[in-house]
Amino acid sequence: MRTKDDKKIAALLEATVKLVNEIGFASSSVSKIAKEAKVSPATIYVYYENKEELLASTYVEIKRNLSTFVLQNFDDTLPVRDILQKIWFNIFRFALKCPDYIRYTDQFSNSPYSSLVDREELEQYTKPFFKVLKRGIEQKIIKNVSSDILSAFIYYPIAFLSNKNMCKNFELTEENIETAFTLAWDAIKL
Amino acid sequence: MRTKDDKKIAALLEATVKLVNEIGFASSSVSKIAKEAKVSPATIYVYYENKEELLASTYVEIKRNLSTFVLQNFDDTLPVRDILQKIWFNIFRFALKCPDYIRYTDQFSNSPYSSLVDREELEQYTKPFFKVLKRGIEQKIIKNVSSDILSAFIYYPIAFLSNKNMCKNFELTEENIETAFTLAWDAIKL
Repeated sequence: MRTKDDKKIAALLEATVKLVNEIGFASSSVSKIAKEAKVSPATIYVYYENKEELLASTYVEIKRNLSTFVLQNFDDTLPVRDILQKIWFNIFRFALKCPDYIRYTDQFSNSPYSSLVDREELEQYTKPFFKVLKRGIEQKIIKNVSSDILSAFIYYPIAFLSNKNMCKNFELTEENIETAFTLAWDAIKL
Repeated sequence: MRTKDDKKIAALLEATVKLVNEIGFASSSVSKIAKEAKVSPATIYVYYENKEELLASTYVEIKRNLSTFVLQNFDDTLPVRDILQKIWFNIFRFALKCPDYIRYTDQFSNSPYSSLVDREELEQYTKPFFKVLKRGIEQKIIKNVSSDILSAFIYYPIAFLSNKNMCKNFELTEENIETAFTLAWDAIKL
């Protein structure tokens, strides 16, 4: 069951995402976010030290949501390719379900605030994605290159393909998502 | 030779990029941009109808710069793979030379302003990149999939790999850039 605190924190997350997507990081003041979330500014300071912490926490919280959503029914006994294909489809599903979250995280990653993220907490949520790749490398199925390079081809293209502004002509059908996955897989496979 | 107009427009571009990267789109008012560029606000309205046009033009102008830079010494008689590898390296060089430009375009693509871009003008600058891919498809060297999907693997990963915030561990050495290219090529080749 959700506590009163949980509800307030959830409302703050939604308000932060909405405001930042509409008016940007700089203009999204604590008082505007509080108003949007229908809480008092003092309430925000109960949970977060300052605006920067709220913005960074919102980012990490979205990554936690994404991770939970994507890894549901996660079966790590399956072959690496099958696991990655499931993850691929699930990230697209998440992007379709919550495009605002993806837009927030894309903007956040490109902003100076991204240096404020609690890397250890973030790693907790991204670790399962890298673990699959590591297993693929050990099994000599996946190229033995850095996880940054692998991510650039197996995870990152999704941000581009699910962005309606950038990919006007890419329809998010099962078939197109599967076709795109064959390219991702060809990129990383040995 | 640069005219007085050219100089003012160049100063406005630099000022727009600098301010937007520092304080975001919403807070970057015409008066602040004018102050940063050391021109009067009235001067901005000589060249641009409003702030939105200035922001969109800045985006298109950066894409024009990128295109000119990347396509220098462009030899379209070379094999498709060689051309794409040259483009790949040149985009990284541009990203290293002008990281602020890349950050601006990344943010812009994720912003609501991206719908204001003059698509026809933009296409002029991106066309050569898609022409190479088309030739590769015709020669049955490259997979016959949409240009959005191909871009997601042959152009877009560069934005991720050259972003220091997102790729802390990826060093932009010739060797690493070449390794990453082998993955890009494996993704799109037939």
